[in-house]
Amino acid sequence: MNTVALAFDLGGTELRGALVERSGGVIARVSAPTLAGAGSEAVIGQIITLADKLLKQHPQAKVVGIGMCAPGPLDPKAGIVIGPPTLAGWHNVPLIDILSRQFGLPVRLENDANAAALGEWRFGAGRGTGSLVFVTVSTGIGGGVVADGHIYHGRRGLAAEIGHMTITGEGDRCFCGAIGCFEAVASGTALGRRATRLTAPGDGSLLRRLAKDGDISARHVVEAARTGDATACRLVEAEARWLGIGFTNLLHLYSPDLIVMGGGLANGFDLLAPGIRATVEERAMPAYRDVPIVPAELGDRAGLVGAASLILWEGEPGTALAMVQNDETRSGAGGQDEPALAPRA
Amino acid sequence: MNTVALAFDLGGTELRGALVERSGGVIARVSAPTLAGAGSEAVIGQIITLADKLLKQHPQAKVVGIGMCAPGPLDPKAGIVIGPPTLAGWHNVPLIDILSRQFGLPVRLENDANAAALGEWRFGAGRGTGSLVFVTVSTGIGGGVVADGHIYHGRRGLAAEIGHMTITGEGDRCFCGAIGCFEAVASGTALGRRATRLTAPGDGSLLRRLAKDGDISARHVVEAARTGDATACRLVEAEARWLGIGFTNLLHLYSPDLIVMGGGLANGFDLLAPGIRATVEERAMPAYRDVPIVPAELGDRAGLVGAASLILWEGEPGTALAMVQNDETRSGAGGQDEPALAPRA
Repeated sequence: MNTVALAFDLGGTELRGALVERSGGVIARVSAPTLAGAGSEAVIGQIITLADKLLKQHPQAKVVGIGMCAPGPLDPKAGIVIGPPTLAGWHNVPLIDILSRQFGLPVRLENDANAAALGEWRFGAGRGTGSLVFVTVSTGIGGGVVADGHIYHGRRGLAAEIGHMTITGEGDRCFCGAIGCFEAVASGTALGRRATRLTAPGDGSLLRRLAKDGDISARHVVEAARTGDATACRLVEAEARWLGIGFTNLLHLYSPDLIVMGGGLANGFDLLAPGIRATVEERAMPAYRDVPIVPAELGDRAGLVGAASLILWEGEPGTALAMVQNDETRSGAGGQDEPALAPRA
Repeated sequence: MNTVALAFDLGGTELRGALVERSGGVIARVSAPTLAGAGSEAVIGQIITLADKLLKQHPQAKVVGIGMCAPGPLDPKAGIVIGPPTLAGWHNVPLIDILSRQFGLPVRLENDANAAALGEWRFGAGRGTGSLVFVTVSTGIGGGVVADGHIYHGRRGLAAEIGHMTITGEGDRCFCGAIGCFEAVASGTALGRRATRLTAPGDGSLLRRLAKDGDISARHVVEAARTGDATACRLVEAEARWLGIGFTNLLHLYSPDLIVMGGGLANGFDLLAPGIRATVEERAMPAYRDVPIVPAELGDRAGLVGAASLILWEGEPGTALAMVQNDETRSGAGGQDEPALAPRA
């Protein structure tokens, strides 16, 4: 068996673990609902339990380290989870120290959006590009940037907080307190909210029927738009425009080779793409207009394989990133639970 | 005599040249009005003339190379000036090739905002910090980012086009065609335009008197606000708010250790600072609120010393930046035309 990394993606809802090969292949996966309200010790106990489960499934695995991602803010260099809003009782938890003592293995920590950006760059939609901005659009909007051969960290690892970039003076107040955050107008939550306001329980609209007369979610809007429902199509159009405005800013600010859109709303990427593209063509300066905007390829594996690659591919934090060579992604993918990632067309 | 670099800062209005030491000290300066309408050959002729003038002034100078900055878009790695709006007839001019053949010296090219960012980082307001965003606010708004040990270039060197980041849905249309660009609402031009609209020729206002009843410039607004003029103070307050919104975005996106504000409007930095700070405190997420925002220190030397440092301090393009050590900035500054930069307090 090739060497593998233990990988964990700690979310506010779900804790996922995997054994990941150097090729990006996931050879085993486990998960559990995160004990998000129970404090850090309980969740670290869950990580240990899941690790045991994975290692029992693959007792011959040559595990060389643990790659871990968690919600920000966190300090990737110090290995400290600072205090994510979705995890109660986590304040400055030295996760790298704790896990490396527990397992006697090297541990690397990265915030979830950065890890997903790295995963998509090495093994997914961004393979072969020099740089990318990964944008996850779901309940909120998060991002990660791989550029000039580095994950763009900035001070305390806090760069690419793109959900709280102001792009307008209108709309609902963001949970952060400001008006006009990208997240407040363009997240899946914002889209669902707009749909809910445009309709009323019992009005017979497709949107409300899909939502069983409750609040409408972004998923319902995408589903209704797929059938050609006029209200849903208008909502998708407005959503695409907000995304296009935000993405244009990302082009001007980071000048990536590629923007990769992930998160729940990426399920509607095909519907959103024409509107996003039209807005970018209208608003971006000419030199930025030809940058591809593509959907993520790795789904919920992106964070896991990105985190694993910190162990399997990286030198010390801060050194330039190693890029996957094509022959390496093609090899070593036989006989796994999950197929290895196909080489790029 | 220490080794020096020839440095040129090619602007749409003025072409500046200097001999710069490794310490950042400028030992000679020359300039000429740029023959901006006459095409690239004429301007390159001016560069050669200014170089001769500098070398005649300091015949013992050990010139080790030429550092050059010019308006974007330009490709710093290829050494090509792509086509700046302010320089007629410049289309894909291979400036590095031309100058290195002319002088038989290594030549490095950087866009003007990036060079100024580098200058301020090495020798000015950003000395000793790990990363900074440099924002120049004058006719337009430009920027440069030094982070994680690199000038942040992005694809084709086009990153940090911060003037065309959308921050609102209101205001005058930007010259780029979009509504709500940072530059369109927060540049010196935008401030002057607001002042001109608020007043009328012959209305006896201080602003119009300062402008001799013509259009009011940002400089007039700052001058009037210094005397306590109520209209000017309100205009400064609104300007500071727009700057604060844009700077908050820069904090969230790049997470620098420091924001440095340069350009003509930095002359009013002391008046603008309280409003900028209040807006950042109100809008930035808590982890970003304590990042200092300071005025640039090098004025119009920033681009020159930054460009020179590409020759005197750098390895190949793309390698990590060397940081100036304190003992180096303190030494070698005796007997020059211009005093060496004082060590930071």
